[in-house]
Amino acid sequence: MKTSAVLLRDARRDEVPAIVAMLADDDLGAARDKVVDPLPPAYYAAYDRIAASGNNRLLIAELDGEVVGTLQLAFIPGMSKVGAEKMLVEAVRVTRARRGTGIGRQIMAAVIDIARARRCKSVELSSHRNRLDAHRFYKGLGFVASHVGMKLGLD
Amino acid sequence: MKTSAVLLRDARRDEVPAIVAMLADDDLGAARDKVVDPLPPAYYAAYDRIAASGNNRLLIAELDGEVVGTLQLAFIPGMSKVGAEKMLVEAVRVTRARRGTGIGRQIMAAVIDIARARRCKSVELSSHRNRLDAHRFYKGLGFVASHVGMKLGLD
Repeated sequence: MKTSAVLLRDARRDEVPAIVAMLADDDLGAARDKVVDPLPPAYYAAYDRIAASGNNRLLIAELDGEVVGTLQLAFIPGMSKVGAEKMLVEAVRVTRARRGTGIGRQIMAAVIDIARARRCKSVELSSHRNRLDAHRFYKGLGFVASHVGMKLGLD
Repeated sequence: MKTSAVLLRDARRDEVPAIVAMLADDDLGAARDKVVDPLPPAYYAAYDRIAASGNNRLLIAELDGEVVGTLQLAFIPGMSKVGAEKMLVEAVRVTRARRGTGIGRQIMAAVIDIARARRCKSVELSSHRNRLDAHRFYKGLGFVASHVGMKLGLD
């Protein structure tokens, strides 16, 4: 039996509604993002800012032509560690129907490949303190929970 | 008595050695950055990448014309929270002679002003699990330790 591989590619502008739907379909995300028609223009403005930035990629995960997930990569140049660039992974979602099928693992393997190809010195992410399953998942991939992620919300 | 205010401004390229010295003069940083003469060209390449990026600022904190600190700001556009931009604060250092004099507090107040002016929806940072004093400091400024910061080092 052939096992299909998850493919990561840059998101198209017409996929913004599908991406917002994936962000909203999440216990924590539901309070922050909602799918309404038409979508607030701010989502498209954000897509355009990401697309125009050389340091960010908004990605779609595909399996046999089906959209199964989304995530964002931010590449952050820095002075520390002899001028190392780090990769930050943000807003990872797998569609509800596809959760628990190993897609997250395939996505993260592809993400780490992208970081290595760009010679990033680390892959970093912050995960809400309550997402215990996510912490276990990332630890299983070799991530170390070495930091405390602190946040100040602004109005 | 007049109280001098800390001023934040973009770092100049000829300040790269001073910045590396501040990064290295730290319990955790000392293992990662060293001041040698001449400095590895990778530091200057990193400075150039930061300067060329519209989403990053390498800053110097000045007090009465004296360099008293450094930090980096990364502005990350995102889809979540209706296309919110977040500000990430990285590599904050205060010169050893000036620690414990309230400069860190002034730097962070100026940083939060920058975030508000750009209409960022949050200011975020990750701090090593062992930096307990730093956690107390940031909590005192209103930051919430809501996340776990996870990291995968690459060769």
